[in-house]
Amino acid sequence: MATLGDIGVSALINILSAFAFLLAFALLRIQPINDRIYFPKWYINGARSSPRRSRNFVGKFVNLEFKTYLTFLNWMPQALKMTESEIINHAGLDSAVFLRIYTLGLKIFVPMTIVALLVLIPVNVSSGTLFFLRKELVVSDIDKLSISNVRPKSIRFFVHIGLEYLFTIWICFMLYKEYDIVASMRLRFLASQARRAEQFTVVVRNVPHVSGQSLSETIDHFFQTNHPDHYLCHQAVYNANKFAKLVRKRERLRNWLDYNQLKFERHPEKKPTTKMGFLGLWGKKVDAIDYYKHQMKELERRMSVERQKILKDSKSILPVAFVSFKSRWGAAVCAQTQQCKNPTLWLTNWAPEPRDIYWRNLAIPFVSLTIRKFIISVSVFALVFFYMIPIAFVQSLANLEGLERVAPVLRPVIELKFIKSFLQGFVPGLALKIFLYILPTILMIMSKIEGHIALSNLERRTSAKYYYFMLVNVFLGSIATGTAFEQLDSFLHQSPTQIPRTIGVSIPMKATFFITYIMVDGWAGIASEILRLKPLVIFHLKNLFLVKTERDREKAMDPGSVDFPETIPSLQLYFLLGIVYAVITPILLPFMLVFFGLAYLVYRHQIINVYNQQYESAGAFWPHVHSRIIASLLLSQLLLLGLLSTKEAANSTPFLVVLPILTLAFHKYCKSRFEPAFRKYPIEEAMAKDRLDRTTEPEINLKAYLADAYLHPIFQSFEEEELVEVRVDKQQVRTASPITSELSSPSPSQHVDHPTSRPQNVYRPTSPQHHVYHPTSPPQHAYNPTYPSDYIFPPSSPSHYAYHYES
Amino acid sequence: MATLGDIGVSALINILSAFAFLLAFALLRIQPINDRIYFPKWYINGARSSPRRSRNFVGKFVNLEFKTYLTFLNWMPQALKMTESEIINHAGLDSAVFLRIYTLGLKIFVPMTIVALLVLIPVNVSSGTLFFLRKELVVSDIDKLSISNVRPKSIRFFVHIGLEYLFTIWICFMLYKEYDIVASMRLRFLASQARRAEQFTVVVRNVPHVSGQSLSETIDHFFQTNHPDHYLCHQAVYNANKFAKLVRKRERLRNWLDYNQLKFERHPEKKPTTKMGFLGLWGKKVDAIDYYKHQMKELERRMSVERQKILKDSKSILPVAFVSFKSRWGAAVCAQTQQCKNPTLWLTNWAPEPRDIYWRNLAIPFVSLTIRKFIISVSVFALVFFYMIPIAFVQSLANLEGLERVAPVLRPVIELKFIKSFLQGFVPGLALKIFLYILPTILMIMSKIEGHIALSNLERRTSAKYYYFMLVNVFLGSIATGTAFEQLDSFLHQSPTQIPRTIGVSIPMKATFFITYIMVDGWAGIASEILRLKPLVIFHLKNLFLVKTERDREKAMDPGSVDFPETIPSLQLYFLLGIVYAVITPILLPFMLVFFGLAYLVYRHQIINVYNQQYESAGAFWPHVHSRIIASLLLSQLLLLGLLSTKEAANSTPFLVVLPILTLAFHKYCKSRFEPAFRKYPIEEAMAKDRLDRTTEPEINLKAYLADAYLHPIFQSFEEEELVEVRVDKQQVRTASPITSELSSPSPSQHVDHPTSRPQNVYRPTSPQHHVYHPTSPPQHAYNPTYPSDYIFPPSSPSHYAYHYES
Repeated sequence: MATLGDIGVSALINILSAFAFLLAFALLRIQPINDRIYFPKWYINGARSSPRRSRNFVGKFVNLEFKTYLTFLNWMPQALKMTESEIINHAGLDSAVFLRIYTLGLKIFVPMTIVALLVLIPVNVSSGTLFFLRKELVVSDIDKLSISNVRPKSIRFFVHIGLEYLFTIWICFMLYKEYDIVASMRLRFLASQARRAEQFTVVVRNVPHVSGQSLSETIDHFFQTNHPDHYLCHQAVYNANKFAKLVRKRERLRNWLDYNQLKFERHPEKKPTTKMGFLGLWGKKVDAIDYYKHQMKELERRMSVERQKILKDSKSILPVAFVSFKSRWGAAVCAQTQQCKNPTLWLTNWAPEPRDIYWRNLAIPFVSLTIRKFIISVSVFALVFFYMIPIAFVQSLANLEGLERVAPVLRPVIELKFIKSFLQGFVPGLALKIFLYILPTILMIMSKIEGHIALSNLERRTSAKYYYFMLVNVFLGSIATGTAFEQLDSFLHQSPTQIPRTIGVSIPMKATFFITYIMVDGWAGIASEILRLKPLVIFHLKNLFLVKTERDREKAMDPGSVDFPETIPSLQLYFLLGIVYAVITPILLPFMLVFFGLAYLVYRHQIINVYNQQYESAGAFWPHVHSRIIASLLLSQLLLLGLLSTKEAANSTPFLVVLPILTLAFHKYCKSRFEPAFRKYPIEEAMAKDRLDRTTEPEINLKAYLADAYLHPIFQSFEEEELVEVRVDKQQVRTASPITSELSSPSPSQHVDHPTSRPQNVYRPTSPQHHVYHPTSPPQHAYNPTYPSDYIFPPSSPSHYAYHYES
Repeated sequence: MATLGDIGVSALINILSAFAFLLAFALLRIQPINDRIYFPKWYINGARSSPRRSRNFVGKFVNLEFKTYLTFLNWMPQALKMTESEIINHAGLDSAVFLRIYTLGLKIFVPMTIVALLVLIPVNVSSGTLFFLRKELVVSDIDKLSISNVRPKSIRFFVHIGLEYLFTIWICFMLYKEYDIVASMRLRFLASQARRAEQFTVVVRNVPHVSGQSLSETIDHFFQTNHPDHYLCHQAVYNANKFAKLVRKRERLRNWLDYNQLKFERHPEKKPTTKMGFLGLWGKKVDAIDYYKHQMKELERRMSVERQKILKDSKSILPVAFVSFKSRWGAAVCAQTQQCKNPTLWLTNWAPEPRDIYWRNLAIPFVSLTIRKFIISVSVFALVFFYMIPIAFVQSLANLEGLERVAPVLRPVIELKFIKSFLQGFVPGLALKIFLYILPTILMIMSKIEGHIALSNLERRTSAKYYYFMLVNVFLGSIATGTAFEQLDSFLHQSPTQIPRTIGVSIPMKATFFITYIMVDGWAGIASEILRLKPLVIFHLKNLFLVKTERDREKAMDPGSVDFPETIPSLQLYFLLGIVYAVITPILLPFMLVFFGLAYLVYRHQIINVYNQQYESAGAFWPHVHSRIIASLLLSQLLLLGLLSTKEAANSTPFLVVLPILTLAFHKYCKSRFEPAFRKYPIEEAMAKDRLDRTTEPEINLKAYLADAYLHPIFQSFEEEELVEVRVDKQQVRTASPITSELSSPSPSQHVDHPTSRPQNVYRPTSPQHHVYHPTSPPQHAYNPTYPSDYIFPPSSPSHYAYHYES
């Protein structure tokens, strides 16, 4: 148990490291050379071009103006300047709603902290059972301020119960208000959006095979029969996963080629060479540039064969289609109704926006989805409760005896004292660290296996899984003893009323641990977020090896985005800690407030200056945030119940029983009141937008607008020169066959539409921020969701996360 | 513990009483005087007129043909003659699907019985641990045939586990097949239905108040805006609960008047008199006929005042409306989509068919529904677990000391030995019996308080509640010791893995109890169902006191209907017993089979000859039947797990753990595969029927057809003479104002449409069986769901359950 002094030392260390990060950030960000790391968002929306132009040579890289070093913390007030509506315009609704979680935390916990400190600390301290036990080791100074200090059977527990009621009501009130605001923000945002392809489009899954008809004919026939007044056209989906692999490979080859060409340009005296074997490590030495050029050519030949195969083979057309309607009303109707007598066929749902689609999962047969979901839920359960087993296995492999047995050659090296202690002390911890580092990736892969077709949905599912992991292993795992698996076993053999008691009783004792956790993870961790160390290093490396033109530099810029799957669950853990400890050990709350305040500033700054969201879900994650805070409330009530029952407070405990029931009722009410706004698209809304469109733009050619909004992105990743030629072909085809259903099964020469030849008002890309994608370049080219998010470097593929802008 | 001999005696008694009932039925049913009791269905559909015509005077009442007495069991083959499709035409789909539950029981349990008896009995008997304990009282002969007889740690348990797997797979297979058949039966039935008002109609709840607009205008405006191509008209709903009370009162008065007039006709020498005070028990003596005539007149005056009030007062228009569309497609779309941005406003749902609506609940404010549901679920929980408390209280009041203290006058009477023993022995039991008798009524009232607006839904909810009660109090209550409340308390303090063990271990011991239960409740109980003692007595009493004309006699006939809220839960209890005991004590299964066979015959006979369903839900209860059989399966698996773990069968038990998971997965699959067929109306289906209509009847006046299909039934309960006059008024109004929205807010003189003046093909009443309602009479007149279902007699209201037919 830590004393107040220990906490102070820990606080000092963490405050210092946080300050070190902030200072480093402040110094690095004003260097022009780092401008693209710390202000990529402004480059993306065109408000900032290269900062180098107006300076001398040294000034291009290092900031020489001494004045700017004095005001190194001025990013904080700057981050607060932008209003919320400006943030929505600048970075999208998701970001704005994400920031609202932090303000919600502040709004909830500031009054709670004041009340809890003013009321509970005196009650706890003056109660003073623990003063008698001063000599025992178990008692820390923190405990004297907590509920542990109150005598069993004391009437003072009514104060705690009263405060629990007060806090619950307060939190529910704030949650209700916030849900209301977010829901109306979402509706307003959706209403204010310009015409977007997904408003008119529905994704249909499990299209049945009718013998003697192509899939395209079946779809056309079905919707022309059942939605005759509203059906417009559809786009078939190809199973192009193999082709996408080739595209990725070509991208990699092109990077190597670029790298070698650049190398040759800089040192023309030395021809770069490479080896033909595995990973270029062995084999015959050849001229690198020729080698990669040849490889590229070979690959392109294979790609064109594959493309022909995809487009000609009817088996590569998936039983999935994007069906577009003449009006939003028609799409809203189709998305919300059951189409077919057999409820497992013709499943309709809102189409995600084109850049939000995870194309690879569209190829998953629908029947396997249930099985996949089942397998993944079992795996997540296993991962949450048994993750220690494989790690322990790896750790045991990494022990020195094992290593010596496997590789006796290493014995003299291992026996060195320094290396031995390093291995023994560091490697087992490293295994755990590595696991925790790759955990979000593992969870994301699991979500992908589950078969969700939208990236936003994938991220939400990953976020949920991560939350369960944190809840069990960080929160409950820290409180109860033993591994999660041992706890699970003991809980199964305990009576259900015993469990909250077992956990509840050890909660006050863990307060110091969680205070330290908040400082390490919350204070120093958040401060390191703003430094962006990894993108900083990668950008400079890319700059050295790959960047030839200004456009390459833009490609090398990695703005990143809010990492919802990791950030939201840890944020929810903080809510849980705050709510649970508010009544039990209120001294934890001020530490929480510092976290919420700092994190709010940091993320506001990052959202304004750095992050560039990959998709816009219009705050679709809010219901999850809401329901998990409610779950935290319920957990805190149960644990307080358990804790009080061990304190023999028999006359006061029953008063608490009503609280969980009321909280659940509140949750149910909120769910029915607000959740449909996040799941469905009301008819009224659709009709209103349709009407508006009809008056403002009565002569719009919707068919052309929607024609290939949902074409697989790889068919659009051609070079400019190819595009023009393709475009000509396409126009001929179009005039020859005006029926849209034929457009949707493009012949090899008509996949891609050159966007510049479209009227500007027709093709407005699918983002609300018109500056993110420039309309003269195809957005799908840039963002290909089938790419893995990790880097292979050097030379990395510059088109990951990169977008094309006007230079 | 009963021996095999005890079981034999019990079986003999129950078989004898069942035969007595069947014999009595066989004798009574061939008496012409009882013809209307045992064959009402044939009178209703017009296939049978009075049996009296062709006979002499005595022959009118007593069957004198000796020959017919010899073949008194010939109803059994007769009951089997009708095919299923004939039953659907004759009695509706609900009845046919209800019968399928019994055949499902036979299909599941016949093979299971054979396998279980052939395999398990030898395994259990030869294992013979219990032979060593023969002298002990706890061991019965039945136990020797059960799993109790198997030695702990025996390898034989693999046989039981194997059979549990086999049975689970078999039951799941049968359930899947049956669900498939029922779902397609339902879809075929719905597809084959003629045009019905509810196919075009959606019920809208929580219509918001717009200031300056009437509710009618708001609704018109909203739907004309958001469904411009499909909206046809709407009907406002009036809060006429007070008026309905007056209608009921008038009905009662009319009965008294009829009764007195008939009395006067039969004995013209004696003028009937009545007393003016409470219930006619005291007060001034007056001439009864004059008195009731005067009362009627007074009541009719009040009714017309009330009617004026309802129609003029805008507050009596409820924020609920029946909105009709031009096509089924439009209605299907509106019912399945969210209309308004605020998801708690403009809630749309399929309208139940007009005779299925429980009008009174339409007046419940929507906001209170959540609270009502919450209160009722708490009450049901309390009722299930604490129902013994009030009964014990009543029983303690009924004890003799208490009675003597309250009424010392009674002491000499009570002290008589015979009366004393009667009171002490009988009254406490009577309190419980009365409670169990009125329990379905209590549960139905609870469901009504919950606020469901369809009778079919009310019955399903009641059925669910009754099932919980039976499950806890009959099944678990018989197995575990103590009251349900004590069990609940002990379960809360046990570990979750302990509970199935506690229950599982006592299951084999209760087999004899359940065998007796099946014989009493299942054999004798079902045989008494066919006798229809209560309707028999009531019909003859009515015949004596009230019946004047042939039409009155028809009114007095009470065909009744399948009592879903009671029958289905007890049926499900039998499934539970069969599934749980199949592996544990297979000797119970043959008793089950007798029940299923007998009950199938009896209900088939009753459905063909007697019952007349009040509504048609097209088998909407099947998902409940299915999911509760699945629940029984899960319960049986858990209990077997618990039982085996007490048998120390550690090496075989783990094999069972997979089974519940697989069962749950199966359930989930079935739910997604079939349930939508019971909840939603597919667009494809709606469109197909619309198309068919357009080709067969292109010139139909849908507006006239739907005009007042959903008018509150009390506005249609006028006598014929009134109708003609009203009709004339209405036609004038109609020609004056052709806008339908005005038709839906009828002026006092236009509520009722005289049906005979409509073209026959326009007004086809809402039932698929055209013979149930004759089109020349308004169907809503006959069936008024706001009437209580119990009788006040004499004189009862002859219009309960009565319908008007062509004489």
